[in-house]
Amino acid sequence: MAPIEVSREILRFRNGHTERTEDSIVIEYPVTVKINGQEFVTMVCTPEHIDEMVIGYLASEGIIKKYQDIEDLWVQEKSGFVHIKTEKANVLSRNFQNKRYLTSCCGMSRQGFVFVNDALTAKKMNKKRVKISIDDCFRLMNEMQISAETFHQTGGVHNAALCDADGIVLSRMDIGRHNALDKIYGHCLKNNISIGDKILVFSGRLSSEILLKVAKIGCEMVLTKSAPTELALKLAEELQITTVGFIRNQSLNVYTCPERIQIPS
Amino acid sequence: MAPIEVSREILRFRNGHTERTEDSIVIEYPVTVKINGQEFVTMVCTPEHIDEMVIGYLASEGIIKKYQDIEDLWVQEKSGFVHIKTEKANVLSRNFQNKRYLTSCCGMSRQGFVFVNDALTAKKMNKKRVKISIDDCFRLMNEMQISAETFHQTGGVHNAALCDADGIVLSRMDIGRHNALDKIYGHCLKNNISIGDKILVFSGRLSSEILLKVAKIGCEMVLTKSAPTELALKLAEELQITTVGFIRNQSLNVYTCPERIQIPS
Repeated sequence: MAPIEVSREILRFRNGHTERTEDSIVIEYPVTVKINGQEFVTMVCTPEHIDEMVIGYLASEGIIKKYQDIEDLWVQEKSGFVHIKTEKANVLSRNFQNKRYLTSCCGMSRQGFVFVNDALTAKKMNKKRVKISIDDCFRLMNEMQISAETFHQTGGVHNAALCDADGIVLSRMDIGRHNALDKIYGHCLKNNISIGDKILVFSGRLSSEILLKVAKIGCEMVLTKSAPTELALKLAEELQITTVGFIRNQSLNVYTCPERIQIPS
Repeated sequence: MAPIEVSREILRFRNGHTERTEDSIVIEYPVTVKINGQEFVTMVCTPEHIDEMVIGYLASEGIIKKYQDIEDLWVQEKSGFVHIKTEKANVLSRNFQNKRYLTSCCGMSRQGFVFVNDALTAKKMNKKRVKISIDDCFRLMNEMQISAETFHQTGGVHNAALCDADGIVLSRMDIGRHNALDKIYGHCLKNNISIGDKILVFSGRLSSEILLKVAKIGCEMVLTKSAPTELALKLAEELQITTVGFIRNQSLNVYTCPERIQIPS
């Protein structure tokens, strides 16, 4: 497998002194996905768990419905191609792929418009199977950050972890925010791991696209140390996803669906 | 103009106490660009300087060559449409728009592949008109951060500033990293402000896409407080752009083309 970071000579200025030194730099690796021999999409990613990233991407975009829709998958590492053989590729999604149609959804205002493809695959989370405490939020964010070693080394990647109340089940990192989540989704699809009863912990900002990705993956709750956007919160309310942000220094904000958080009395 | 942030009631947990409070949340605003009546692209952005963002986007994608290629531009704010009238839209770019072709560029390895559209518009910066000191780097990053008020309020946006050695000429923010740079580019095109003799200061990570955007805009130097990726640095070397990263706490890294930085002797 290609390395995920490389050493590189740089010029470092620190406390008044300049020195040539070796620094660790994160790799961006372009991957082109071919479905039945046809070029489908090119994405840049951190080169690990590429197969699971592609599986998660195709499922969250609605191209496939389940892992078994893929008959064969092989990665050509040197040239950066991932080949998919399937007779189940969703043609509707294929048509929508290149053009992002906006449509009104759920009776929301302009700010609540979503993309057609997303509306087809995002799930409404009305089951409320997850319930955790405020302390769990701090602990899970802390565990995610400790497990995110590459981030500490190079500062160039986003981290995501799938957790239950006991701790991290699976963690992935990528230079692409979406890719880290796709890698988690793909792994769970491939290994038949349930997601609906778990929590996503994320290092990055909660934009509408990330929130929709969480909904497509099928998670009831997402924790982040960063801020959400208003559109993400409107979608979270509509899709009944609990969003917790700014988890840092013994402080956090619960933005939507607080009923899944046990508040200390 | 639509607001760029809104107040929202949230549940805040801090130092053992939970309270309902008002928080400021940044807006994501979907904008659909129509060229001569045809839908071209939909982007999500922070709703300010939308016209300049679209101008900068079209120029950096090679759709237009100069501001004068646009005969008319009007923003339909409520519905989120930007209409462009032009007879100079670049058909080649139009064809490449939906599919990102990879091609070998500049004799680099797989990691150095770039997208065709980018290769057509990225400029090689071999003029070396800019020279600043290490202290300038710290000072400009500091000025950019002070001017980035919305970031401090909501934590949800990226900031970019166009500077000369004396300070900030123009600063823009957006929830989208690319959009902040497009807004700067569009403003300069519209107002005939030279860019080649200035410096871009950026709050976000320096990925290959951001580096290419810097090259398309035509800047010789980019400063960031975050990390670069390896692909971005390879492109920076090839395009002769000075990259300075991790500017924080009186420390910084010069990654490429250090000849534009005056090193203290």
